[in-house]
Amino acid sequence: MENIIGILGGMGPGATADAFSKLVSHTPAKKDQEHIPVIIASLPGIPDRTESIIHDGPSPLPGMLNSLKILEDAGASCIIMPCNTAHFWYEDLRASTPVTFLSIIDITCQKIISDKRDSVAILATTATVRTELYQNKLMKEGISCIIPDDINQKNIMNSIINYKAGNYQAAYDTMASYVENLEQKGVNTFIMGCTEIPLILKPIAQKKPEKFIDATDELIKEAIRWYYEASGINIRKAH
Amino acid sequence: MENIIGILGGMGPGATADAFSKLVSHTPAKKDQEHIPVIIASLPGIPDRTESIIHDGPSPLPGMLNSLKILEDAGASCIIMPCNTAHFWYEDLRASTPVTFLSIIDITCQKIISDKRDSVAILATTATVRTELYQNKLMKEGISCIIPDDINQKNIMNSIINYKAGNYQAAYDTMASYVENLEQKGVNTFIMGCTEIPLILKPIAQKKPEKFIDATDELIKEAIRWYYEASGINIRKAH
Repeated sequence: MENIIGILGGMGPGATADAFSKLVSHTPAKKDQEHIPVIIASLPGIPDRTESIIHDGPSPLPGMLNSLKILEDAGASCIIMPCNTAHFWYEDLRASTPVTFLSIIDITCQKIISDKRDSVAILATTATVRTELYQNKLMKEGISCIIPDDINQKNIMNSIINYKAGNYQAAYDTMASYVENLEQKGVNTFIMGCTEIPLILKPIAQKKPEKFIDATDELIKEAIRWYYEASGINIRKAH
Repeated sequence: MENIIGILGGMGPGATADAFSKLVSHTPAKKDQEHIPVIIASLPGIPDRTESIIHDGPSPLPGMLNSLKILEDAGASCIIMPCNTAHFWYEDLRASTPVTFLSIIDITCQKIISDKRDSVAILATTATVRTELYQNKLMKEGISCIIPDDINQKNIMNSIINYKAGNYQAAYDTMASYVENLEQKGVNTFIMGCTEIPLILKPIAQKKPEKFIDATDELIKEAIRWYYEASGINIRKAH
């Protein structure tokens, strides 16, 4: 049976579309039929992840499990979920399915470790920062993490909320100003650890790609590697 | 039960990603939960539509029916298919499902008719042109259609094939040169009647939006209207 990548999306839909576009553009296909089969569930009614973690809002887990079931039933053989904060529930999701489920957090941390970065600034939702999804893994490897203070974290969260509301300029201004401030202090690696952030910071991240680790991009590259390996295709010889 | 838009994609995957991105960006949502639920089947192994029609290649219909079934089973209540040529099989697909199935051809023609355009140049695959998907509907309304001669049609088809193969500049140069040639002859409306063409012609179409009818864009706007109407939401009051 053919391998299919399942995208557990909707968190948010813009980030899902970005992940799908990156999957298509990173695939070395020369015609439609060489592209990777993908099923996407973008059911954005799933309750807000940060609200659930920080303000005890409704759990997104039942909604995520529903999307996961849809992807499984549709034949997905590998699941990816382009939302960092949602990985707070990663073990619950992984345990509930027989299908391979790649973790955006593990893959991004692996990239940072293999790049031998010694210090990284984390740009993420308040929930991702507070639950230490990135810090837990990186600090074990001796990589120090720069975390915003409460005021800056509130600004970063507002930038993400603004982006989701369609206020792109306000989102960019807030986030870029924080980044520039850290750059002046000598910080030179930023994890874009929320799938809206590569969209928000596009103008600045495109100019200085060596400074920005795009978690979505790392997840997609790993999903493509997974697909070629599972399908027994040598990616270098594929075309 | 909530309404879900099902995207029967993969023809090609880049066009599917474009349709999904347009759906997200055209939706007047202020947060994730206000976005439209979407399921996408992008299973690009479906045989080439133009090859099937022009060179008697394998039929894409079984593959399209398979994707349609996946979308139905996942709960889709309205199907869209961002591939113009595939609409050669539209009646077969529509007849095989109880779910609403919007036609990109009908919707785009309706836009041209309501805009009172009297003459349009058709940019599409050789199969879409030869099977007269657009001409049939437009000429009945007294709208004249400008069709490329064989050499130009071959160039347009090569441009689409080049785009699918990742040769963006070659794709653009060929297509833009044909468009500029027609513009010099006074043609001022172009149907981008293949879902790769808005991607190929982006630089020129963004500069002169009044001249270019983007079939993908028309389909997406209609799908959004369908969703709000079917869900009993007044789009103007939605936010």
